[in-house]
Amino acid sequence: MKLASLRSDGRDGQLVVVNRALTRYARVADVAPSLQSALDRWPEVEPQLREIAAALEAGTHPQTHAFDPRECMAPLPRAFHWADGSAYVNHIELVRKARGAEMPSQFWKDPLIYQGGSDDFLGACDDARFVSEEHGIDLEAEVGVITDDVPMGTPADRAAEHIKLLVLINDWTLRNLVPGELAKGFGFYQSKPATGFSPVAITPDELGAAWRGGKVHLPLVSHINGRLFGRPNAGVDMTFDFHQIIAHAAYTRRLGAGTIIGSGTVSNRDRSTGSSCLAEVRALEMIEHGAPRTPFLSFGDRVRVEMMDPSGASLFGAIDQRVVRA
Amino acid sequence: MKLASLRSDGRDGQLVVVNRALTRYARVADVAPSLQSALDRWPEVEPQLREIAAALEAGTHPQTHAFDPRECMAPLPRAFHWADGSAYVNHIELVRKARGAEMPSQFWKDPLIYQGGSDDFLGACDDARFVSEEHGIDLEAEVGVITDDVPMGTPADRAAEHIKLLVLINDWTLRNLVPGELAKGFGFYQSKPATGFSPVAITPDELGAAWRGGKVHLPLVSHINGRLFGRPNAGVDMTFDFHQIIAHAAYTRRLGAGTIIGSGTVSNRDRSTGSSCLAEVRALEMIEHGAPRTPFLSFGDRVRVEMMDPSGASLFGAIDQRVVRA
Repeated sequence: MKLASLRSDGRDGQLVVVNRALTRYARVADVAPSLQSALDRWPEVEPQLREIAAALEAGTHPQTHAFDPRECMAPLPRAFHWADGSAYVNHIELVRKARGAEMPSQFWKDPLIYQGGSDDFLGACDDARFVSEEHGIDLEAEVGVITDDVPMGTPADRAAEHIKLLVLINDWTLRNLVPGELAKGFGFYQSKPATGFSPVAITPDELGAAWRGGKVHLPLVSHINGRLFGRPNAGVDMTFDFHQIIAHAAYTRRLGAGTIIGSGTVSNRDRSTGSSCLAEVRALEMIEHGAPRTPFLSFGDRVRVEMMDPSGASLFGAIDQRVVRA
Repeated sequence: MKLASLRSDGRDGQLVVVNRALTRYARVADVAPSLQSALDRWPEVEPQLREIAAALEAGTHPQTHAFDPRECMAPLPRAFHWADGSAYVNHIELVRKARGAEMPSQFWKDPLIYQGGSDDFLGACDDARFVSEEHGIDLEAEVGVITDDVPMGTPADRAAEHIKLLVLINDWTLRNLVPGELAKGFGFYQSKPATGFSPVAITPDELGAAWRGGKVHLPLVSHINGRLFGRPNAGVDMTFDFHQIIAHAAYTRRLGAGTIIGSGTVSNRDRSTGSSCLAEVRALEMIEHGAPRTPFLSFGDRVRVEMMDPSGASLFGAIDQRVVRA
């Protein structure tokens, strides 16, 4: 099942069910007005939404409409909890190596996670607005999961049942604001402006065999200005799977329905697959040449993030955003 | 005007208007079902709520009910944005001094802020559940503001108009998990479990002359197990006022309606006023005796946080929570 939130009068959009091919949608206002309200009572709502999805797929739904990702808000236009992991630890090691910093061995055993701002998410085709190019505008292409209520202390082997949906994420980052914020110890804040999301959120079964062990075993494809930038496989070199990240997040607190957990920048040791953020490319250049050569993004640049199934069909639709001056 | 969210079938509680004396309330479901929905369209809703508040105060409201803070959820039982400042910089300096760490001079110029988990807030009289006493359970008594939509780049001198409500906060902290998390640079996560809030949120005018310059000029009174623990004045030694913290928060992003911004642990240089967290007491003991003497909290302990007007009347009602094993 694929779900989207279309722009509407309200702040939370209008929940719709989208067909597998991402060409048609059906309204579901009588089942749940918004994705958050659906997640709030998922056991009751899910079967009704799946029935509509089946009719849509079978061509028997009485009223369908042409789906246009430009009408999409983020699947959750605002959320109560957005926590982003950094699960591809070889990526962290690389970036640290480039700036001559040691990486604590603990990083291989204990998931890194930060609490993100969740009151203002961007739709897949929304412009991404930034104050200044001097801040070092960077993409971070990621995979994310959306959970139902996760009790405090949920172990990794019970986390799978709480994953209801998956999304693609562009965790826009202001790279030049990061060192100052991390040095203060309180984590990211100004360096992490509004985050972009794929047009649709999909249930795990839509991934078939590519969803296993709490990982998505498919390439995450990023383009900058129409040019292929990276296609690392999200299932490769993911040190902590989503089950482990959820267990880490729920260690001392409950997670409310609609919690979004991100994977962190997808990165493979096999450098031929490219990267999912410019910081990694610049780190590699630093190690090889002693200085970065690739600039961060400029106003007017476009960033596209997408994931295809083995037949080449887009699973989540594309995040396709333009970098603009606020 | 004073607002509360009473426990209801839904996750966001039932918005009510409470009288100044915190003894009676009136239902306002026909105006707005929840505080978030009120904040989403505040210009339209506020006059209607104020009319009800006036009738309640005048004794002319047709249907009122006895107010019991034990029926309260947090004013926003879940929120889309909760960012906590650390505005009493002398407190940070003290805690750092105790552990022999230098404080960067930048801390006096640039507000510290962290993104908090906002999907699971605690009502004023809810038990506060923790996994283990070994984590170093601590209170952090604070003042907070709730904003409407704050545009990106809002300067400090335009921030006041966005502050719609004030609350008291107990930002429960697992002190022994803090050093490990801060060392990783990604900020607090496991060390900041669910946060407690006062029974009511109040509009700034309820504070009269005590609300000026983006600060609340009144003592914030904390008790542990019925014994006075601290009463530092929230308006004294607050290095960054709420206007400056909001400007810092909105520097690279919009803040959505219902954003909660905390002051951080209230602390005065005048040590006779006591403290708002055990970490500060322990830091003082460390400096004086070479080792802390006061333990962190134990299961069964009670923590009360309250603020009175000059006549001794409770402004927000009391946060009065018991520390229990999860």
